[in-house]
Formats: sequence, structure tokens, C-alpha cells
Amino acid sequence: MTLDANELLSVCKRRGFIWPSFELYGGVAGMFDYGPLGLSLRNNILEVWRDMYKGGEGFVEIDSETVNPREVFKASGHVDEFADLMTYCSQCQSPFRADHLVKGMHPNPDTLSPRELDAMFAERGVSCPECGGKLGPVEEFNLMFKTTIGPGSSRVGYLRPETAQGIFVNFLNLYRYNREKLPLGVIQTGRGYRNEIAPRQGMIRMREFNMMEVELFVDPQDKGWERFPEIEGEELALVPNTGEETVRMTVGEAVEKGVIANRVLAYFIHLTKRLLVRLGIDEGRLRFRQHLSDEMAHYAADCWDAEILLSYGWIEVTGIADRGCWDLSRHAQFSGTDLTHFKRLDEPIEAEVEKVRARHRALGPAFKDRAKAVAAALESASPSDIRDGRLALSVGGEELVLTDEFFEVARVREKIAGERVVPHVIEPSHGLDRIFYSVLEHAYSFDEAEGYTVLRMRPEVAPIKVGVFPLMAKDGMDEMARAIYREVHSSRMEAYYDDAGSIGKRYARMDEIGTPWCVTVDYESLDGPQKGTVTIRDRDTGGQKRVPAGSVARLISEMVGGKSFADL
Amino acid sequence: MTLDANELLSVCKRRGFIWPSFELYGGVAGMFDYGPLGLSLRNNILEVWRDMYKGGEGFVEIDSETVNPREVFKASGHVDEFADLMTYCSQCQSPFRADHLVKGMHPNPDTLSPRELDAMFAERGVSCPECGGKLGPVEEFNLMFKTTIGPGSSRVGYLRPETAQGIFVNFLNLYRYNREKLPLGVIQTGRGYRNEIAPRQGMIRMREFNMMEVELFVDPQDKGWERFPEIEGEELALVPNTGEETVRMTVGEAVEKGVIANRVLAYFIHLTKRLLVRLGIDEGRLRFRQHLSDEMAHYAADCWDAEILLSYGWIEVTGIADRGCWDLSRHAQFSGTDLTHFKRLDEPIEAEVEKVRARHRALGPAFKDRAKAVAAALESASPSDIRDGRLALSVGGEELVLTDEFFEVARVREKIAGERVVPHVIEPSHGLDRIFYSVLEHAYSFDEAEGYTVLRMRPEVAPIKVGVFPLMAKDGMDEMARAIYREVHSSRMEAYYDDAGSIGKRYARMDEIGTPWCVTVDYESLDGPQKGTVTIRDRDTGGQKRVPAGSVARLISEMVGGKSFADL
Repeated sequence: MTLDANELLSVCKRRGFIWPSFELYGGVAGMFDYGPLGLSLRNNILEVWRDMYKGGEGFVEIDSETVNPREVFKASGHVDEFADLMTYCSQCQSPFRADHLVKGMHPNPDTLSPRELDAMFAERGVSCPECGGKLGPVEEFNLMFKTTIGPGSSRVGYLRPETAQGIFVNFLNLYRYNREKLPLGVIQTGRGYRNEIAPRQGMIRMREFNMMEVELFVDPQDKGWERFPEIEGEELALVPNTGEETVRMTVGEAVEKGVIANRVLAYFIHLTKRLLVRLGIDEGRLRFRQHLSDEMAHYAADCWDAEILLSYGWIEVTGIADRGCWDLSRHAQFSGTDLTHFKRLDEPIEAEVEKVRARHRALGPAFKDRAKAVAAALESASPSDIRDGRLALSVGGEELVLTDEFFEVARVREKIAGERVVPHVIEPSHGLDRIFYSVLEHAYSFDEAEGYTVLRMRPEVAPIKVGVFPLMAKDGMDEMARAIYREVHSSRMEAYYDDAGSIGKRYARMDEIGTPWCVTVDYESLDGPQKGTVTIRDRDTGGQKRVPAGSVARLISEMVGGKSFADL
Repeated sequence: MTLDANELLSVCKRRGFIWPSFELYGGVAGMFDYGPLGLSLRNNILEVWRDMYKGGEGFVEIDSETVNPREVFKASGHVDEFADLMTYCSQCQSPFRADHLVKGMHPNPDTLSPRELDAMFAERGVSCPECGGKLGPVEEFNLMFKTTIGPGSSRVGYLRPETAQGIFVNFLNLYRYNREKLPLGVIQTGRGYRNEIAPRQGMIRMREFNMMEVELFVDPQDKGWERFPEIEGEELALVPNTGEETVRMTVGEAVEKGVIANRVLAYFIHLTKRLLVRLGIDEGRLRFRQHLSDEMAHYAADCWDAEILLSYGWIEVTGIADRGCWDLSRHAQFSGTDLTHFKRLDEPIEAEVEKVRARHRALGPAFKDRAKAVAAALESASPSDIRDGRLALSVGGEELVLTDEFFEVARVREKIAGERVVPHVIEPSHGLDRIFYSVLEHAYSFDEAEGYTVLRMRPEVAPIKVGVFPLMAKDGMDEMARAIYREVHSSRMEAYYDDAGSIGKRYARMDEIGTPWCVTVDYESLDGPQKGTVTIRDRDTGGQKRVPAGSVARLISEMVGGKSFADL
């Protein structure tokens, strides 16, 4: 591989895939705009993902707001924990990510504390990479873009760092929409924001990025998946966190051996593989790496990253996690709202149970108009949450610790028709821009004979499906070519009409943007034994065939759907 | 019409079209999330728009960033002028839009200055509508959400108030992509943001909204449009700014009589009508109103709003403007970059022309490393811009006034191959959420006989195309229904499988969400002379027919494409 990311980015820029944003005003690092071809490719990727989840798995899709009030990210933990450690040069004021400055000096720099980093700078004599100046103290920088909602600065808002929270805060709406049943699968695509300190690496670290997120709510006592048997024999390349080796095993084996925590998680790891391969990612450069124990969120039952080998090295493009009850528990706690699923038993049973009961007489005077909310929070707590006679609660975003002056534990006998459980969340979260970029890198090839780039993109994702050329823009060849162009276009497939330069040059232009087929109208199309036929040329084999002009739209559509050129 | 917007919004919420955002945390005014049905409807609207502009007119689509650096909105004028006048109650601190408080006291309250509003409050005794308190002084509030890019607070950014600027700042990239030709048509959809003071009126005023914007760059000397003759005989309902009457005339007449400024603008006013009617807007409740002279931007050659009659009154959903050279001139000026089109003449001519020439010797010492930028700005100015021997320029966002110490006017004879012109912009700008809401209102009807809401949405935009029911979930009817459901779904049309409750109840559920057809599998489908057939029922006529089960997906697809139920 001779591919250099900068070279690819420059082809992409020249050809209208992506443009660094705001170049007119000097540019802003970590921001890219999608040009016409790039947006088509991105939308085609999105449609494949949508087809697999909405069409294939019956998930539903929503779209929630990008500006969120602070409460949401207080509950999710982002206000307190979504931060990088940074330092400014005391001389030139350049900002740096502190962990990036000690790369190679520590096996895992992003686990170091601010004080450890300060010490390491002093010890190893680390100075400003820009001017050699002394580095200032290491401090936390929250990576959310902050703003205010409405006039005054009273209501703080943030641009969402992920689309996931929009699904969690709508859980009740979605649960009702699904007629109060589990599993409940929800997808969302849209912008996420991360106010990077000093973004580099092209499209890998973007301040404004696009996500394709999936949140699957399941019964915590049932981590199986109905369609698991269909794929348990399929193979995965896994890097379990017990070592650094890639091991190949079937999905079934991975679950049996406890390498992947459960079947539903394994199913969606496999579905991620299917998605990426269908988009054109080379299976030989795709692996699933399990999070190390110090990398995994404390609440996660298991977490894997889909990693793709790019010119930057192995890059994470998707995370697939079993997040347990964390997300819904936190929002239930912070909002004081019940976010449980009622799991009905086939037969009601009678049992003696312990319950936390609020002492309303004590709550009223102490909490006034918040008494109702505090009582609700108390009664949704479990007796097992009591520590030293106290219950820690969060009510309306505020942390309270209540003594048993405010509650009691009662033993009651009751008919149990079922139980309330907090659904667990299985989350395949895809970075759309990284996948977009990976598709381009894996499609990239250089035609040594012709001396130009060819993007061997899969027809399903290629922005333009067919180039349509008149041999010359005269004698009616142009009109015939335009008619073919219009027919393909009106079948909602993108076509490109080109009558400038030699046919070879026009092929080259199409190869360079990944167009799988080209159609040429020539003199034989107009008259003689071949009248009414055109030449269709295949990008990857260079093969050419004559087909009736009227069949072009149908043939292209069939080939986009999977039919091979050889079978035309 | 008995329709009440709140009633419609509550049906929409219950059925999963839209949900007020962040209800879990008390809600945020002016924000809505799209539920599964709403998002499908919105995406279907988007696809129709895309089909008309990309497919039909050959425009290209891009996607640019939502967070923009300040420079962009300084050039566009939003930093200085995108503001509402507001006041706080001095007692309860509630914020209000000042012009809303004097409605009915003045014919055009939003033309009043802060001082005029203060005076009117005092004169008319206007006090706080919430508590009756005294209102504070009227002040400007900029409606852009503000944030900072990167660490430190040095680089100010704003959430874009419109998607248009992302197209303008990419003009050079787009112009090259289009091989330096005009006309150049570009579309973009995505979020826009407006930090409303006190949003009301449901989905009409949203803080975060979705736009479908079109920017067409044309030769300023050619405001014609090739396809104009195709539509010049079509009728429009127009409210010219010379009166308040709605007049009906053909597109051709409107241009000839000078009611609409030019053909290209008239073409896109008509295309807007076609779009809205195709989406299901009632033609009788659609009109185009010309901006009043004090309403029109000073740079606009002409501007019309598409207005739809809703339960809120006549509401603007789309603006169609001829913005002249304003947008590109401003960005050229503020960025110091040439954003002109080179218009080649068929034959070069020789002529004597006047040109501004920079005096480099004077510029160097005075402007140091900015001298080159100043010189470029000078030489791109025209001698006709000189006032009293001075030239006003903007260089890198800064305003300069230079005396003729720094430049001279030279007369030169030169061969002219063509001329540089600043393209003019024709902008049809659509509010997607308002159109979405209008489609729902115009589809709304109440079935008095059955006692429930029916949404008579056009099949092309309806979120679910067909409901598929087994008469009972047994004896193989469920399997047959599921097979039909899967076949429709895999043809990328949304279907809904339902086996709960009576058939009448299931019809009602589908009618309420606008599903045009329902298919029922019954005992006759399984055996007897009708074996293999199912009943298909039409929402709008209530008619029923038996058709082969295997033809359902194809028939639905044909009817979505326009075939009528009667012709099945």
C-alpha cells in the first residue's frame, strides 16, 4: 500500500467529496463540509445502515435535538466527566492535549492524572512543541460546546456529544409507541459535537461529526436474540482483552467460551461486521477489539470496538457495548421518573416483599413543594439501597441523603402479576465520518498503467452509478445520451452526463470518483445493425458490452442490486 | 373547520409523530423531537424536494457545518442585525418580545425602534402580562446561539441561523465542481438555530429547526430560465405588495406585467407551488405574498413568501428571493477573495478600460504583511467605487478607507475575452418543520361516523404505506400476513404489522396515522376459491378489493407512484 491519507484527502477535495470548512476565512481545524459526491456517498452509507436496522431488524428511527439543557448531561455524566487534560504553553499560549505530549513515555498516557502529567513534564523536560517554551499546569477541559438557551444566561445548554441521550430521554415515548414491549430497538442519525483541543488526523477527529447510533432496550434477564441461530456459525476476528492477539472464532464459540458476554451483544457485533463489509470494508483489515478493563466504563458489562486498518493504523469506527441499566437508571434518578418495564408473569404469584415507604408527615414540612418528588424517589428506591440507615437519592438533579426519619421499610404480602425491571441497553454506535473515510481508503487503488486513481467502491454506495457519454456532442448522439441520463436519473439513481474531452479522459474522471459503469453512445447507436444499442463499460474489469439503450436504467438498477456485469 | 392546533399536536404526540423535547426534565420551549412516524413523514417530504431539485433540475447537494466561526456571520450581517427587541419585567424577570406586547396598537410593531417601544409602553400603560409589573427598557437580543470553538474563549462561534451561508462560503469549491459554469444550483438540508426569546405557536417558532434551502447562482445579465416556457401558462395566487388582494394570474402574465421581477424567480415560485401541492397542501389555502417594501431586505431585487392558511392564520413556510449580488459580494469583501464568474465572450473584443491600480510602494510601509491583501482588495475594486478620491474596502473583516496616496486610476487598452461578474442568487428557502406541520393540518379530517381522526396524507409522503393484518393471529393467517409485511418492507416501503384488536380498530389506528391502504389475510386467503388472495382496503374511499397476496408489494408501489385504487 502506497496510500497516504493526505494524498487521498486532496483527491477527495479536488473531486468534490469533502472540503475543509471555512477555508475562505482561514479554516477551522477538525471541521469538514461534504461536497456533492461525498454527501451522496454518506447518504448511501446511511441508507444501507437504515435498511439493515429498520428494514431488517424492525427498529424504529427518531430525530432529537442537538442543543440539550444541562440536566441531560448532568445525568449522563458528561458535565462531570467528558473532558480531556490540556495545557497551554506559558510562552506562545498554544493549547495541547497533555497526554499527547508524553506519547511513548508511558504505556497508557490517557490514564494519567493532571498531577502525574505535570510531574512527567518536569522529569522528562517536556516543553512546548511549537516554541520550546515552558508548559503551564495541566487542567481539565470539558469537551462539550457550551451555550445558553433563551435570553439571559440562566439556562445553560450544550451541543450533544452523542445522539444516544436523545433516545434515552425519550424512552417513555418510545416504550409507549412499542406498546410497552421489549425488546425495543431505536436508531438515530445526526450530528454530535466534541470541542477538540487541537484536532489532527483529517476526518478521524472532528469537532462536528455524524453518528449512526442504535439503542436496543432488552429485558435484563434475557440477553438472547431470536435470530442468533442464523449467524452463530459465522466467523469473527476478535482481540479479547486477555491478550493482544487476534483470534478467529465463530460467533457461537465466542459466546460459549465467554469471550463475548452474551448472545444479543454478539449478534450486534456480527451485524456491525456485515454492515461494514457490505459498505466495502476489506474483511482482512477489520477486527473487533474488546475494551481493556481500565478502558471500559464501570457500568458496562462488555464493550467491543470495530477497528479498521487505515493509513493511520487501527482506528475505532464503531463501539458495541452492553451498557447494563446505567443509562435509564441515571435518567430515572435525576428526573425522578419511573423508567422501568413491567414484566408480566404468565401466572400471578403471592409473595411477601420489603418496600421503602415515604413518611409523608415528615416530608411535607421539610421539603414543602418538593415533598411529592422526594416521596416518589424514595418509593422507587429498593430496601437494598439503604446504607447505615440512610438513602442517597437524586431529586431534580440535586443529591439528597435522607435518614430514616423520612422513610420506613415495610413488609407486605402482595399479589405479584409481574415485576418492574430497568431495561438494559445494547448500543452499537457508529462514527459515520470515520466509516465514510474508511470506505474511501479501502476503495482506493492506483492504476499504474493509466497513471490515475481508481476508487473501487461498491455499486450500492458509489455516489454516481453511471456516467453517460455521447462519443461526440453532435449528430444526435448527445440527445440520445441525454435521454438515457434522464431515464436513469428519474429512477432515483445518480447519473453523470459528460461530453467534454476524449472518452478515455471521461472514463478516468468516472474511475476517480468510483462510478462503477459508463455508457457511451456512438455512431453505431444511431444507424446500422447495432442501431439502438450503446456500449456499457465495467470499471473493475474494463470489460465492455453492447446493450439496448432502453435497458440501461433497468440493468444499472439490477447491478446496483447485486447482479454481476458478467451476467448481463 | 373545527381543527384546533393543540388537538392536532396531541394526536401527533400520542401517535408518535412529534414529542416536545426534554419533557423528562420539564421541557424546553420551542423544541420538538421527531418520533418514528414523524421522522418518516419528514424524510419523505425531504425526498420529494430532493427529487424535484436534484433529479428534476440537476442541482447538487452539499452538507456543511452547523457551528460557524464569527467571521461568517459578520459578513452575512447576522452578528449585527439578527436580533429581536426584548424587555424583561422588572418585577418577575420574565422575558418578552417587545413587539408582541404592542400588537394591535400599531399596524406594524416590528418596525418600531427600542425608544418608540419604550414610549408606547409608557403611553398605553403596557405592563407585564404575567404579573402586571413594570416593564424594563427595551433592548436588542441577538438570536444566534453563541459558543466558543476550541479551548479558551478566544474563537467565538455561532450555531448557524440558516443553512445558506454554508453554500456561499463554499462557492469557489462548488463553482469548480460545476466546471466554472453558470447557472449553478445547490441545495442543502439540515438544522438551523434561532434562540427565540419566548417561543409559542407549537412547531411554527422553533429554536432548532430544519431547513431545505436552495441557492441558485445565475448570470446577473440573464434572469431567464430554459424551462420557463414549460410552465408559463400555469396559474398562481399572488398578493403583490401594491395592495392586499389576492390576484390570480399565469406565471407568464406575472412576469410580463412586472408583478414578479423576472423569469427565473417566477419559475422557482411556481416550482415551490408544485412542491407544496405534491406534498398534499390544499391549493385553495396556498398563496404567494410579495414582501412589503419595508419588509424586503435592501439588497433584494424581489421577494415572495409562500403562505399556507393554517389554524394559526396565514403562515409563511417558504421564502423565494432574488438576493442580487449581496451574498457573494459580502463574502468577497470580508474574506478578500475573488468570488466572481468569468463570462467569456463569443469573440474577444478590444477596448479601453479604467482600472484601479495599487501603489505598492506606498502600501508596503503602511500595511506591512497585510499589504498584499490590501492591494488585492484595491485592484478588485472598480473606479466607480471611488468617492471623493477615496476607496472604502474591507480587508480581513476590517473596514479601511484609503486615499489616492495608495492607488491610481489607469486607462488601459486591452483585449477583452470576457468579463468578471458577481453571480446573483435566487433563493427558495423552505422551513421543513412548518411544511411538515402544514401537511398534517391539511391532511387532518374527522370521521364523524366512526368518531376518530383520519389523516388523508398523500401516499408519497405517508409514513406507513400499508397496514398488514391477519384476521386472527392463528391458523397460518399470521404467517401469511408476516410474509406480506416482510416483502413490502424489503421493497423499502414502510409497512406495519398488527394483530391486536378487531379489524375495525386496526383500520382506525392506520387511518389516524395516515396509512393509505390496509391488507387483511382471512380464512378465504387460506382455502377455497379465493385461496392466495387478500383484501386491500382504501383509506379515502373505504373501498375494498381482493388481490393476489404475491402482488401486494408491487400494487402498493404502483399506487405510491400515482396509480389510483380504482384502477387496480
